[in-house]
Amino acid sequence: MATGPSASAAIGVFDSGLGGLTVVRELQRLLPNESIVYLGDTARVPYGTRAASTVRRYALSCADLLCHRNIKFLVVACNTASAVAIDPLEQQLGVPVIGVIHPGADAAVEAVHEQLNQGLVAPKIGVLGTAGTIRSQAYTHAVQRQLPGVAVIEQAAPLLVPLVEEGWLTGQVPTLAVERYVQPMLEAGVSVLVLGCTHYPLLVPVLSEVTERCNGIPVRIVDGARACARAVSTRLRQLRALNDGSNSATLSLLATDLPDSFLASAQRFLGKGVSDVHQVDIVPSTAVLPEETPPDA
Amino acid sequence: MATGPSASAAIGVFDSGLGGLTVVRELQRLLPNESIVYLGDTARVPYGTRAASTVRRYALSCADLLCHRNIKFLVVACNTASAVAIDPLEQQLGVPVIGVIHPGADAAVEAVHEQLNQGLVAPKIGVLGTAGTIRSQAYTHAVQRQLPGVAVIEQAAPLLVPLVEEGWLTGQVPTLAVERYVQPMLEAGVSVLVLGCTHYPLLVPVLSEVTERCNGIPVRIVDGARACARAVSTRLRQLRALNDGSNSATLSLLATDLPDSFLASAQRFLGKGVSDVHQVDIVPSTAVLPEETPPDA
Repeated sequence: MATGPSASAAIGVFDSGLGGLTVVRELQRLLPNESIVYLGDTARVPYGTRAASTVRRYALSCADLLCHRNIKFLVVACNTASAVAIDPLEQQLGVPVIGVIHPGADAAVEAVHEQLNQGLVAPKIGVLGTAGTIRSQAYTHAVQRQLPGVAVIEQAAPLLVPLVEEGWLTGQVPTLAVERYVQPMLEAGVSVLVLGCTHYPLLVPVLSEVTERCNGIPVRIVDGARACARAVSTRLRQLRALNDGSNSATLSLLATDLPDSFLASAQRFLGKGVSDVHQVDIVPSTAVLPEETPPDA
Repeated sequence: MATGPSASAAIGVFDSGLGGLTVVRELQRLLPNESIVYLGDTARVPYGTRAASTVRRYALSCADLLCHRNIKFLVVACNTASAVAIDPLEQQLGVPVIGVIHPGADAAVEAVHEQLNQGLVAPKIGVLGTAGTIRSQAYTHAVQRQLPGVAVIEQAAPLLVPLVEEGWLTGQVPTLAVERYVQPMLEAGVSVLVLGCTHYPLLVPVLSEVTERCNGIPVRIVDGARACARAVSTRLRQLRALNDGSNSATLSLLATDLPDSFLASAQRFLGKGVSDVHQVDIVPSTAVLPEETPPDA
């Protein structure tokens, strides 16, 4: 990292809302010396139901805002934005960028190799995500680039984000909803299940329970937030851009809208209390985007 | 209607998304000669979780766009926007405006009077709505202005909109979710239940089933979309602005974002097929809004 921000600069992370805080939680576990600036685009959440061109526009304005705060690295902690906006972001930004799709896909490929080594015949990968992520088929492309023959079954699960945001993480309603989305994948022989949305790690207890109960073979659940944090750690090490810990690490939370419930919800995703969040206004990006961008594959 | 648009002009209707089409459906039933221009602000849906100042800004930009299409009357078919933006809209627009809160509250008051006449002691009103609508307490204010002593129990039900949008209108998941929101209200003695969100009429079968099963006394369900259409009909008659039917009625659908599922979802809300929808770009309103606006009460 010869030019640009110093290693003591913060890692910038954005998501359409609060789900990306599950990535922040994993980053803090793995890289306790790193400062983080998090932006939740809560005034325009959710991205998952919107057109790809709209998501690209939104992602670029979030990235612009964070880059003006002198970050050394950008994490797109939103699957929908990672699926459709990583390429234009990489082309236009002056800092390295990582999304959540590639790390999640890599972890799924690794799990398939392990299952093959254990003697499982023809492991299959299932992906749960928002409508936008699934429509992009970004996970299928990213996985099949490494494992051309593997079967990937993608399933949009639009109800899981609202369930997490409502805090219904256990009990009958989330169990039945997860069952409805996951059971057909299990019946089709899925042995690796990728959580293709940063909200879903909070549903891991229910997901584990459902996959254990419904399935004859053990299903490996791939947590995209954790995989992303590991990839960030590796890249920062390669770039020699890890913070040496001489300054204390900070976490700044920014949001484009501030509903009353922000702090309570943030705590749920982050796994610990947060005291303060700042509202920021976002200016529509004037940068010109290419009309059609290939998916993050 | 001495000046302004003629009686043959269309009625403008907007909502944050597609829910307002339940109001369009009722308007078409009641006023088959009227042309309608519907705007779904699908690029910024949902409004229900956003700050009041954000919703006011969004509502004004939707109203601006419709007024530029020469409408004779504006229907705010979104409870959240009706709760926080009716007053500034009335002050700034050149056409009459009606929201969904007042008509729904009026219908609830009427139901209470009927129940009192039938000998029910102390009827209570329950309101289901989005977080934003419930936070505003707009229904409580609107009802208690007419019935100062009546008890009103408001309950945010954030999961019901995603359930309707996912098309899960019957079966275990919507039944359990509705039960979880409604049962405490029934135990508290609610005898009138106001559907304070234009998505909820699609859940009437489940709502009826749950209230019948859980409750000793019959519960009257007030459909705000239907009440709103009746109020529009009355106001147009008073203003002598009803279309005489000499031109055939049209329905134009506009949306600020166009996910693939728009047409299929529109059909669900409208109760019949739609063939065409146009994407429009929305320009942030530059009008100055008062800092604090009292709720629609």
